[in-house]
Amino acid sequence: MQNRIIHFYFDYLSGYAYFAWLKIKELAEKRELPLTPHPVLFAGLLNHWGHVGPAEIPPKREWVYKDGFRYAALHGIHFEGPKFHPFNPLLTLRLSLLEVAGDKQKQVIDALWNAGWGNGIDLGSEKEIITALETSGFDAQTLIEKVKSPLAKETLKTETEKAIAQGAFGVPTIIIENELFWGSDRFEQIELYLDGKDPLDHEKLKKMLARPRGADRIQR
Amino acid sequence: MQNRIIHFYFDYLSGYAYFAWLKIKELAEKRELPLTPHPVLFAGLLNHWGHVGPAEIPPKREWVYKDGFRYAALHGIHFEGPKFHPFNPLLTLRLSLLEVAGDKQKQVIDALWNAGWGNGIDLGSEKEIITALETSGFDAQTLIEKVKSPLAKETLKTETEKAIAQGAFGVPTIIIENELFWGSDRFEQIELYLDGKDPLDHEKLKKMLARPRGADRIQR
Repeated sequence: MQNRIIHFYFDYLSGYAYFAWLKIKELAEKRELPLTPHPVLFAGLLNHWGHVGPAEIPPKREWVYKDGFRYAALHGIHFEGPKFHPFNPLLTLRLSLLEVAGDKQKQVIDALWNAGWGNGIDLGSEKEIITALETSGFDAQTLIEKVKSPLAKETLKTETEKAIAQGAFGVPTIIIENELFWGSDRFEQIELYLDGKDPLDHEKLKKMLARPRGADRIQR
Repeated sequence: MQNRIIHFYFDYLSGYAYFAWLKIKELAEKRELPLTPHPVLFAGLLNHWGHVGPAEIPPKREWVYKDGFRYAALHGIHFEGPKFHPFNPLLTLRLSLLEVAGDKQKQVIDALWNAGWGNGIDLGSEKEIITALETSGFDAQTLIEKVKSPLAKETLKTETEKAIAQGAFGVPTIIIENELFWGSDRFEQIELYLDGKDPLDHEKLKKMLARPRGADRIQR
């Protein structure tokens, strides 16, 4: 039970990762557990697993927006959604690396979520990002310089690869010890896990995973 | 508000559709609303949208099994998971059509969910399905004969196409009037919708949907 760390994998492209960020911060604080944010390239996960993102399927895109607006309204979360979506998240992700933001990492992440999903700036625009960071009291120029180093580029790549190696297939992903939780709506399970009350029957799971595939996808 | 019908789209391949079936029956009964089950071929939805199913991504497959076992344990649902997964669901789906099961449709669906996900039979095996139906008191031979008619084949195809035309991209999908809800875990939203208290801000949604894409997927 000692030294448990909450690892949080996210990409600014996901509104669910915004909701999960707000909740995981609260949970980590309440339980006095260290929280380690890992920016990762969602597109990298999708490419690796041959998967498709919600914004790439028109009716799913509409549904996740609706779901997000409903969730935000019910939970009193300020939520406009970014000016364009999807957008190129590389700059925001690199800004959010520990190697770039240093001991201000969580505050930088807070500022970016709030500016993009909260207030609706363009999270793909360097100019708008700089303004948002400055408004939040950061030395944006220094951050932007660091972001452009090869280290930032390389670290984001490594973070994404490490997430894939641990089985992350989407964002947000929360990993505690070796247990992976996907999505913004499994906090009940996370709390039980942390309480040592995970209801998972490992024997049943083992059997299920060992069962052969009975059929593959039907092509019409 | 009059004559609201709850449309439930499902495929036996999805454990989440099993959970949603149990909940939607309860909700329809509580509110005295008609419930119309629509068996659809999940593979048909995936093929249409170029999407990928959870069982096709190894770590996601593991995660959904875990999530299912946890949910079932927490909610006291008998849950073994089918003998093979994925399996070929065509026979079970066709058996579940109104055109085949007639006024016993909901009972046939109950019996199949219970046999497969509850008790772990092979939902791709005609023999095991017949036994399960007989155990539940159905005239399995008559059902099987009806299933083999061109009408059953055609109707399942039509149901799947109609679901796609309404924007269904996964299962379970619940449609009430023109409102689509996806998944087994959005019942709070469904209840609010039915109460006339949908928290969705339609103006915000309209704006969000009208925004241009800022970028497409980054290929590394």
